[in-house]
Amino acid sequence: MANVNENYQKLPGSYLFSEIARRTAAYAEAHPDAQLIKMGIGDVTRPLVPAVVAAMHAAVDDLARAETFHGYGPEQGYDFLREAIAKHDFAARGVDIAVDEIFVSDGAKSDCGNIGDIFDINNKIAVCDPVYPVYVDTNAMAGRAGDYDEAVQGWTNIYYMPTTAENSFSPALPEVPVDIIYLCSPNNPTGTVLNYEQLKAWVDYANENGSVIMFDAAYERFIVEEGVPHSIFEVEGAKTCAIEFRSFSKTAGFTGARCGYTVVPKQLVRNGQSLNAMWNRRQCTKFNGASYVIQRGAAAVYTEEGARQVEETLDYYRENARVIKQGLEAAGFTVFGAVNSPYVWCKTPDGVGSWEFFDRLLVDCNVVTTPGAGFGPSGEGYVRLTAFGDAEATKEAMARIGRMMA
Amino acid sequence: MANVNENYQKLPGSYLFSEIARRTAAYAEAHPDAQLIKMGIGDVTRPLVPAVVAAMHAAVDDLARAETFHGYGPEQGYDFLREAIAKHDFAARGVDIAVDEIFVSDGAKSDCGNIGDIFDINNKIAVCDPVYPVYVDTNAMAGRAGDYDEAVQGWTNIYYMPTTAENSFSPALPEVPVDIIYLCSPNNPTGTVLNYEQLKAWVDYANENGSVIMFDAAYERFIVEEGVPHSIFEVEGAKTCAIEFRSFSKTAGFTGARCGYTVVPKQLVRNGQSLNAMWNRRQCTKFNGASYVIQRGAAAVYTEEGARQVEETLDYYRENARVIKQGLEAAGFTVFGAVNSPYVWCKTPDGVGSWEFFDRLLVDCNVVTTPGAGFGPSGEGYVRLTAFGDAEATKEAMARIGRMMA
Repeated sequence: MANVNENYQKLPGSYLFSEIARRTAAYAEAHPDAQLIKMGIGDVTRPLVPAVVAAMHAAVDDLARAETFHGYGPEQGYDFLREAIAKHDFAARGVDIAVDEIFVSDGAKSDCGNIGDIFDINNKIAVCDPVYPVYVDTNAMAGRAGDYDEAVQGWTNIYYMPTTAENSFSPALPEVPVDIIYLCSPNNPTGTVLNYEQLKAWVDYANENGSVIMFDAAYERFIVEEGVPHSIFEVEGAKTCAIEFRSFSKTAGFTGARCGYTVVPKQLVRNGQSLNAMWNRRQCTKFNGASYVIQRGAAAVYTEEGARQVEETLDYYRENARVIKQGLEAAGFTVFGAVNSPYVWCKTPDGVGSWEFFDRLLVDCNVVTTPGAGFGPSGEGYVRLTAFGDAEATKEAMARIGRMMA
Repeated sequence: MANVNENYQKLPGSYLFSEIARRTAAYAEAHPDAQLIKMGIGDVTRPLVPAVVAAMHAAVDDLARAETFHGYGPEQGYDFLREAIAKHDFAARGVDIAVDEIFVSDGAKSDCGNIGDIFDINNKIAVCDPVYPVYVDTNAMAGRAGDYDEAVQGWTNIYYMPTTAENSFSPALPEVPVDIIYLCSPNNPTGTVLNYEQLKAWVDYANENGSVIMFDAAYERFIVEEGVPHSIFEVEGAKTCAIEFRSFSKTAGFTGARCGYTVVPKQLVRNGQSLNAMWNRRQCTKFNGASYVIQRGAAAVYTEEGARQVEETLDYYRENARVIKQGLEAAGFTVFGAVNSPYVWCKTPDGVGSWEFFDRLLVDCNVVTTPGAGFGPSGEGYVRLTAFGDAEATKEAMARIGRMMA
């Protein structure tokens, strides 16, 4: 008799975005004339840039002719893309990452989840609170999380690190030994970043304790301030303790096209085993490479023309983030994130819960946000707004919120 | 201290295709004028058909305009593709599969590997011998295989079912209880098929024992004979005991484009849990949907024009298979597969091992094949040839083998 993975039964329902959708739909139905502005989801809205579009068309044409047809590609990704990544994302910032330390995939979400395959199920996991739910849920599925405790809205065997205004969104080093540490900078959902010294403390901790840091740098391209590492490998010592996840989703609008990559340094060894070799074996066995068409599109991001065009798109979103931050602050709110991130983390008025404030913004302003409590208990008292929307709609949303608070 | 998944250390090296490459390269270096014909790999060579190319170009253009841009898609795949699959791959053959029983992905290899996530690690696995290595290796990585025994070239906790000419390539029902059974028809590597009655025996066994059948139908479109199910769901009772994997790779040349799908019936329940709901949760948590561009291309396979064009490509490969079978038989060999499959499974001459025969074909005919022993002990005494090559080269290879045997 086949038995199922019993850890799946422990998972609580995934209510956040469905509950947002339910409340939004109910309001829209009751108010059919309302002009809703959706600032809740983390999806992009600007089209792919012309250089990427041209590269994808050319790649489709390659597949249309026998002489240029591409069948199975390398599971690790094509060298034309890996070499561009090594040069532009790392060497250009003084970081030496070899081509065979880069593994191209269909996206960072897949890699963030699948990376658990190469680790023992008894490792102790540490995550920030609030947190991108994928880190937690994938470990829970693998049996690393213990049981879900509804009362504290957390798993019994996961170490949660509050990351709030009280500690300037820089989590304290753990008080119990932890084995695998998830860090995300620029952070989803708070939009805040960890600077060099803050990351260095984590790298030192990991090297001293044999821990491994899972560093999610999906929003790296939004960093504009000096002193904020774009890669954890800019931090001395990180190659012996960290794995980094990157994505073309927010950088270049690939949320629907699908492409990301993971860096596993060859110096990263645990139990005498090379994690680079283990991840290579995992990918060769359970993955067949990212689409040739999409990899060609991703490589175009690194051409002179593509890079310039992508910057224009990023500037569009960065300006939205600035408008949101300025608008909320002018309305009297305390705001975090936004500067190096497409996410704006807004403190709710004193004594107002994040779901209550979500409702108020929906009803009074017809603006849809994401309640911070949906990302974990320490997200209570905040809502998240995203800069990925239309520029005019973003301005209009801020005008409405300004009028509400006037 | 982070510990690694110790099961990875148990994996033997993956020597088959690297050893083939090594021997081939050594021969080519010593004989630079040799005109090698490669019939070893299972990759396609014909380009994507025009309808698919046009659909991919249109999809790229969709992503190039804000009004038609597609960001995150459904993790399960777009309805335009799932509906086409349900209609053409199932309803057209009298099989009722609902759209929400179909999960589109980046390929069948990913799904075949990842499906293990939803099962307990103590399930007993049964595979055919010879076998597509992914079934075995992914279970070994998860800890279901026990230890690798070099002497018998197999894992201590996997139940191997010899599948050879002696049992007409129809494996016997197991003599010990097994929980998860991998079946592949048309089979890789033998090219043989299981008919309705043979599959029915497995479905009955699985339903009686609570086992789950992993049915790999990646080569389904090569079936030309009557009485051979294209889907296990054509077999009465399969919906309560089977999961089916499908691929656009060999059907429509998507080995480089990447698209496949998995069918998990809602009636499939174990330990009181819906496997459909569990796989849905797995995909929503660890996958972010297949590329929009590629899904549009896959949907074009089901248009009238696309279907006709794809049949022409399939006929090209089918004719190659016929040429190989006829050529080898004319040269005095005993041949299996080929009729409903792109794979031809050729018995080596009496007393000649599969690696020895591989070498003979390489040296005497400059034809590269795959030694059957590479797929498992019961593959000894066979070599595999594939029909995915150039038609003229395929004929030339058979002419050379004919001359060698004359």
